[in-house]
Amino acid sequence: MRRLKRILPADGLLQKSADVAVYECDGLPVYRARPLAVALPRTVAEVGRVLALCTEYDIPVVSRGAGTGLSGGALPHPRGIVLALSRLDRIVSIDPDNQVARVEPGVRNLAISEAARPFGLFYAPDPSSQIACTIGGNVAENAGGVHCLKYGLTTHNVLALKFFDSGGTLHEAGGPTGEAPLDLCALLTGSEGLLGVVVEITVRLRPRPPATVAWLAAFRSLQEAAASVREVISQGVIPAGLELMDGLALSAAQDYTGIPYPEGAAAVVLAEVDGDDLAVALDSERLRAVFTAQGAFAIERAARDEDRRRLWLGRKSAFPAVGRLAPDYYCMDGTIPRRSLVPVLTEIGALSRRYDLPVANVFHAGDGNLHPLILYDAAVPGQLERVEALGADILRLCLDCGGTISGEHGVGVEKLDGMCAQFTAAELAIFHALKSAFDPYHVLNPGKAVPTPARCVEPGGMHVHGGRLPFARLERF
Amino acid sequence: MRRLKRILPADGLLQKSADVAVYECDGLPVYRARPLAVALPRTVAEVGRVLALCTEYDIPVVSRGAGTGLSGGALPHPRGIVLALSRLDRIVSIDPDNQVARVEPGVRNLAISEAARPFGLFYAPDPSSQIACTIGGNVAENAGGVHCLKYGLTTHNVLALKFFDSGGTLHEAGGPTGEAPLDLCALLTGSEGLLGVVVEITVRLRPRPPATVAWLAAFRSLQEAAASVREVISQGVIPAGLELMDGLALSAAQDYTGIPYPEGAAAVVLAEVDGDDLAVALDSERLRAVFTAQGAFAIERAARDEDRRRLWLGRKSAFPAVGRLAPDYYCMDGTIPRRSLVPVLTEIGALSRRYDLPVANVFHAGDGNLHPLILYDAAVPGQLERVEALGADILRLCLDCGGTISGEHGVGVEKLDGMCAQFTAAELAIFHALKSAFDPYHVLNPGKAVPTPARCVEPGGMHVHGGRLPFARLERF
Repeated sequence: MRRLKRILPADGLLQKSADVAVYECDGLPVYRARPLAVALPRTVAEVGRVLALCTEYDIPVVSRGAGTGLSGGALPHPRGIVLALSRLDRIVSIDPDNQVARVEPGVRNLAISEAARPFGLFYAPDPSSQIACTIGGNVAENAGGVHCLKYGLTTHNVLALKFFDSGGTLHEAGGPTGEAPLDLCALLTGSEGLLGVVVEITVRLRPRPPATVAWLAAFRSLQEAAASVREVISQGVIPAGLELMDGLALSAAQDYTGIPYPEGAAAVVLAEVDGDDLAVALDSERLRAVFTAQGAFAIERAARDEDRRRLWLGRKSAFPAVGRLAPDYYCMDGTIPRRSLVPVLTEIGALSRRYDLPVANVFHAGDGNLHPLILYDAAVPGQLERVEALGADILRLCLDCGGTISGEHGVGVEKLDGMCAQFTAAELAIFHALKSAFDPYHVLNPGKAVPTPARCVEPGGMHVHGGRLPFARLERF
Repeated sequence: MRRLKRILPADGLLQKSADVAVYECDGLPVYRARPLAVALPRTVAEVGRVLALCTEYDIPVVSRGAGTGLSGGALPHPRGIVLALSRLDRIVSIDPDNQVARVEPGVRNLAISEAARPFGLFYAPDPSSQIACTIGGNVAENAGGVHCLKYGLTTHNVLALKFFDSGGTLHEAGGPTGEAPLDLCALLTGSEGLLGVVVEITVRLRPRPPATVAWLAAFRSLQEAAASVREVISQGVIPAGLELMDGLALSAAQDYTGIPYPEGAAAVVLAEVDGDDLAVALDSERLRAVFTAQGAFAIERAARDEDRRRLWLGRKSAFPAVGRLAPDYYCMDGTIPRRSLVPVLTEIGALSRRYDLPVANVFHAGDGNLHPLILYDAAVPGQLERVEALGADILRLCLDCGGTISGEHGVGVEKLDGMCAQFTAAELAIFHALKSAFDPYHVLNPGKAVPTPARCVEPGGMHVHGGRLPFARLERF
């Protein structure tokens, strides 16, 4: 610790209990752990020195951005330090000719679009935490968002990275449009802090679309709404966003925002199209035709910024709105092929009744990225266990139709058991070998994202979250 | 060999000299080597058995598709076998709802779009060899093409892979839209046969655009043409293709096709916009405005299929056309940021005069992906060496402005020395560690794509191709 202190600026090492407490958990506070210390470097060089020192002394390092992650990826290690990168927050350059921005990891997602606005450009991936979350965290988790249907996940918008390996050596990956035989840039993106510490990111910027129109279509059944999502894509329209809210989510959002949805709606689909005026007009008419043909009983259109914001408000506030329905809720995250939307949503409804736990669905339907919100009360003995079992059943449902256990929230500590279900032992062995290739001493975020072979052979089936974490102290929200 | 024969169908193992000769080289015939045998499995299971056997006996395995690669990636190993995957040519399924196709590696690139056509879909990446090249080879080399500016490289259009590791164990990577903490799918794509043998590929299909318009703009200087390319993108138009041909390429293409270009053109820019009718009309007008503002003295528009084909014919036949200008030509492949197009093209012109070797430029300008074609006569003593030196200077130019030594042709054996220039020793060490993670015994395509540390410290600077390959017999085209 003394040597760590020498490396860092005067206010760059937190060790007092009150200071460190803030870093005990990320956006999944069901897991908490107290680190030995929190390092807050101000420069890239300091990051390298911290890593070299921690590798020398075999001290686990957990990198962290804004701590908004939802799978416990930034949960501290009790024998390790948290490497908080929030002070590396420079926008190094905006290059409008090549439509790229070079930024440090602590820059907030939305700040990139704000800096690019004078050039008529924006950064497309927009996780719902985009006001707070950092681009470094987005890279670590391969974050998504409403716009990812049209513009891709974080990995599709990252062009190059500078990163330290665990020994503190700086590397560069990626480049303008060129290729290396092994795409380290794509490998690092989404690697949840296991392979390296990213200290500079070159992201793709895109021209701001001149026109944007949002649509809301209300349906009398969830199944009709889900079928219309599939049909929109089949018709060749790729909206900038294509979201679905079910009846429970609608009534919660309506109570929360005071903005009414069409009376009798069992589900609504929200779609936004952007581009040139004429293209938007054309796509809009195709959307209207699909929604009508699929049985929508009410269709609304919003073109002015103010009207669009009003239309989206319920969706954007759906999580806190649903949060008011019960003392606790648990947000699941998995993906399914679009063709499976109708049967999977039907089955989730059946599971909800069987477990006697309400489930609200508000999600990126166009991507097949489900976000079932399970409502419960952790104070009622046995409820958390039922939530876990229901969550595991939902993820199994995703896997059974060819989907994945994680959509855009990562694996972290939350889905270690799910990894055992999704991947074979041989595939997990490849993950471990890759980890060792970058970080032979397992200093970087140990215990996250990739389960040990031993964990996978233990009996007990798939847990969503809960007791089997080796070092986390489980506490209530 | 006896055991290999038992694994394969009766006609599945070639050992006779005449049969094996066909496989001595790929599309870069300056390198040739005779393998021990050529294995032609018919099923996925046979591929696995071949790999298990070769690993057991430590026999190098070089996978091969149609052999159209341009960097010697499928050059045989003289102590190894060629694993030709051309008979794995089934289109397993086309799923129009999810807009994906599952195909075996031996399926030709163009065959995917042909199979998808009845559903109104197509597969976007279009290397110029697309009639012949296979999707397996496209995945190995992360192939590009004219359409990649708008629709991405192969890696952006591959959703999932099934692959064998060197021991013959089958793995799956990727999925619908979901993520794994380590993106094996992106890592395998472009890995040039070093990590595994891909036996099934799930690719993204896209709706066929209802309208397509091609534009040709002629300029009195190469610099004006290059500047207009940059300006098109800056204006927010992303054409489906944005290509540049210089004066030498134009006169060669004109002689070859008989179709005249505007008199006095020092360079032309070809652009194609696709999408809905109205969007195409809008983009077209923006293109016309940019070209006019940038000094184009002649602008042509082609909307009918027949006219478009005519406009593109010169570009599509530019390589064979240029090939008639000299006994030999060497096609370079590197990338640069778009903002560097003007200075780099100017410098290539200066290098061409200094080395007294004509260079024709026909390339994916929108992507910054250069393809300088160096004309020479290998029969003239010393010319090949001058070509090598000029090629190396061009690649150094790419690196100096932040580009890469390989655009879409891969590294193979051709650019091993260039890798030493582009990457640090520490970065190459990561590549080697990744290779070992998948293929601990170095059975898969040994000696390709990633140079040994020893090679990089040898004196002699960067060679483009030539004498330093440990096992290749260098022969003339």
